[in-house]
Amino acid sequence: MAKPEKLVEAITSMEDDFAQWYTDVVVKAELASYSGVRGCMVIRPYATALWENIRNELDARFKATGHENVMMPLFIPESLLQKEKDHVAGFAPEVAWVTHGGDELLPERLCVRPTSETLFCDHYKDIIHSYRDLPKLYNQWCSVVRWEKTTRPFLRTTEFFWQEGHTMHETAAEAVEETERMLGVYADVAENCLAIPVIKGRKTDKEKFAGALATYTIEAMMHDGKALQSGTSHYFGDGFSRAFGIQFTGRQNTLEYPHQTSWGMSSRIIGAIIMTHGDNSGLVLPPAVAPVQVIVVPVAPHKPGVVEKAREVTAALRAFCRAGIDETDNSAGWKFAEYEMKGVPLRLEIGPRDIENNRCVIVRRDNREKAEVSLDSLGEAVPRLLGDVHKGLFDKAAASRAAMTYEALDFEDIKKQAAEKPGFFKAMWCGNGECEEKLKQQAGVTSRCIPFRQEKIADTCVCCGGPAKEMLYWGKAY
Amino acid sequence: MAKPEKLVEAITSMEDDFAQWYTDVVVKAELASYSGVRGCMVIRPYATALWENIRNELDARFKATGHENVMMPLFIPESLLQKEKDHVAGFAPEVAWVTHGGDELLPERLCVRPTSETLFCDHYKDIIHSYRDLPKLYNQWCSVVRWEKTTRPFLRTTEFFWQEGHTMHETAAEAVEETERMLGVYADVAENCLAIPVIKGRKTDKEKFAGALATYTIEAMMHDGKALQSGTSHYFGDGFSRAFGIQFTGRQNTLEYPHQTSWGMSSRIIGAIIMTHGDNSGLVLPPAVAPVQVIVVPVAPHKPGVVEKAREVTAALRAFCRAGIDETDNSAGWKFAEYEMKGVPLRLEIGPRDIENNRCVIVRRDNREKAEVSLDSLGEAVPRLLGDVHKGLFDKAAASRAAMTYEALDFEDIKKQAAEKPGFFKAMWCGNGECEEKLKQQAGVTSRCIPFRQEKIADTCVCCGGPAKEMLYWGKAY
Repeated sequence: MAKPEKLVEAITSMEDDFAQWYTDVVVKAELASYSGVRGCMVIRPYATALWENIRNELDARFKATGHENVMMPLFIPESLLQKEKDHVAGFAPEVAWVTHGGDELLPERLCVRPTSETLFCDHYKDIIHSYRDLPKLYNQWCSVVRWEKTTRPFLRTTEFFWQEGHTMHETAAEAVEETERMLGVYADVAENCLAIPVIKGRKTDKEKFAGALATYTIEAMMHDGKALQSGTSHYFGDGFSRAFGIQFTGRQNTLEYPHQTSWGMSSRIIGAIIMTHGDNSGLVLPPAVAPVQVIVVPVAPHKPGVVEKAREVTAALRAFCRAGIDETDNSAGWKFAEYEMKGVPLRLEIGPRDIENNRCVIVRRDNREKAEVSLDSLGEAVPRLLGDVHKGLFDKAAASRAAMTYEALDFEDIKKQAAEKPGFFKAMWCGNGECEEKLKQQAGVTSRCIPFRQEKIADTCVCCGGPAKEMLYWGKAY
Repeated sequence: MAKPEKLVEAITSMEDDFAQWYTDVVVKAELASYSGVRGCMVIRPYATALWENIRNELDARFKATGHENVMMPLFIPESLLQKEKDHVAGFAPEVAWVTHGGDELLPERLCVRPTSETLFCDHYKDIIHSYRDLPKLYNQWCSVVRWEKTTRPFLRTTEFFWQEGHTMHETAAEAVEETERMLGVYADVAENCLAIPVIKGRKTDKEKFAGALATYTIEAMMHDGKALQSGTSHYFGDGFSRAFGIQFTGRQNTLEYPHQTSWGMSSRIIGAIIMTHGDNSGLVLPPAVAPVQVIVVPVAPHKPGVVEKAREVTAALRAFCRAGIDETDNSAGWKFAEYEMKGVPLRLEIGPRDIENNRCVIVRRDNREKAEVSLDSLGEAVPRLLGDVHKGLFDKAAASRAAMTYEALDFEDIKKQAAEKPGFFKAMWCGNGECEEKLKQQAGVTSRCIPFRQEKIADTCVCCGGPAKEMLYWGKAY
């Protein structure tokens, strides 16, 4: 029984050092390891399986809303990146440049895509001619590269994995509707698959995407009270269309520019899962995307018939959920700690006495509640318990967020509160970028979003005291 | 009825110009288009859906044989690439080099991965310590980059999509077994999903992969008699392990080097599908991976009830196959030509008289055979017809290959035959690389593989007349 203690000891407690706790979980749960390449990670099998499950949930929803996947080139010629001026200004400082192919110096530098608006526009120019060609609803799954100075696994890495949707529409109204629809898909996946409560809202001008007219976001709160932007959806208007000369013949036979959106969710969301649900025993995974939903642990496996029965139960579970079995000769205690570390939602223990009584013990990862379950009712009990874990995780995260969400009325108030405690601060804003900048510089909080669900906290801006336009969420962000 | 004729006219016939026919199919079936990036393609939705289906077939087989997916970095530092000398010599001349991150010159150049042996080894060094850590059975889905001088869609592009399996084993025997197992998976997918008959064999030393001790291959014959290498599996021995210092404590408590394999199938296989099954009306897709297996075309859709019934039939089909419906106002003739171009395996026509008689007409894409089918028996008839199309495609390809496979006995014989006709030439070989080179230079044929299924054509080498060791397939290759 020494091993489980050693394992648990190996994680820093999150109260002692949250950043170190995070890194410990990433490494000990075998999610990722550092590679010999600066800022790039090796995404290990467990995290890859998790990402594949998240991808499948998103992809099914993209397809159900009429989107098609495509695969665009990895490289963007420098001249193409430069076609939209706000966009290039936003990305040029952080791209990786390819200058040589084999021994030859290239006539034009290519950047490794940091995002693919320009590539999609270059293609759309060739395939959009008439309103009958619209909408174009494309998505791609890929990795992108942004040269980061400081990196942290999943949260900020030079290369990261994501999907990027890029759509073109006949009218501005349709494009705005698409932007909102896809934000809804992200919120649906975050809340109903990942058990992460999110705030839907719009970014301020200062925080919006390079080249976008409007950026929508879902913002989640981590254990430490910091915000994590978990998915964004951008409305571009016809800015790129004009820059790239994309035109179509409209219904009135006039030449028009299509209206564009893009939207993305990335492997960063794995960081959100860790920091929303994890605890001092390790990872806690939401059942809908957990690579293993139930781990079967034979107790006293040397006793006759135990392993056989455990295998039989595992096979039965696999008809309706993702089940694993640990038949190694490690101790039961070691296994308990190991699968807690890996965040497996349910642990099913079965030993000689259980078998005698045609039952097993199921332990929830989230709250460690134990239930004795008849082997005849697994088909009912396991899905119910997985649902309970999901609800337990969501409710706990929502309660934690509520407990760390505050209101602030004036500048001294928000400055003092932000200095004293982590969390989200709801406060009114006049809409002026100077106030936003002052809050960032002097109170240490940035605007997270202008939530769709507005509340009137006060009549005046938290910063300047002038007439307030909107309520914003403010906080510290990853 | 002008449109279908126009569409069909737009394809060059393969007898007139095979290369142009190929390009026409790629473009007109909307598989891919050229991008503004040298040597890189835009893989359009139809080809992306096809690739996803191929990927799913392969991925399921990888997982069923115990493999796990991982995601490795896109970049390889120059020093890492150089660790295995044969490998770097093979790839350094054709890699893309990243020299700058943003405005900064990097202290060390990074290449965009042309293949990932070195990255996997760098990771395996960290995670393999004991024989208990073996085997490691990893795979990744990604794109890789090789700087090509001349490119053709799918067949040879600067960036291409593939999977690369990389495994480590305790013994040489296990690694060799893995190499052969995965070649078997490729042959299974090629023949049973893609309806492409393949020859399984080993590459000669001259043709094997950079750094490998042995390379196994599946070779397919295209319509024009040329060979397309369709999947390869490599056995590395412990060469990389030694170069990277990967060691484990073995069962006898001694330090040992693990034995390695890698294996890959790429988006090139889409080129093989086009050139094995396509005809002068366009693409012909094997049912197992066709994005749309049955296209429903309402005939006289303005007549009351026709579209409604066609929708009902489509919904019923979707319970057991991938079905589409074309409700556009294009003519039936235009639609027939369009879905022939796209290679949809079955076309289901339904009009007022069919509805009256509770039947429909189903037309096979491969041989245009028509069948009247009762609407009550679609659940039996459609899967059977899809199976018939698969078998029809496979048998036709196998017959075509048989008709273009010849035997050659001596140098003048193979030289004359190769000059006169395209195809595969079975001929004996002494095992000497000089004979291989002479056949390439003077007869214009390269060794395709040493087939597992050997036949004794003669006693002497086709080139030098010395004692023969093995029979090889020779031919021209893509």
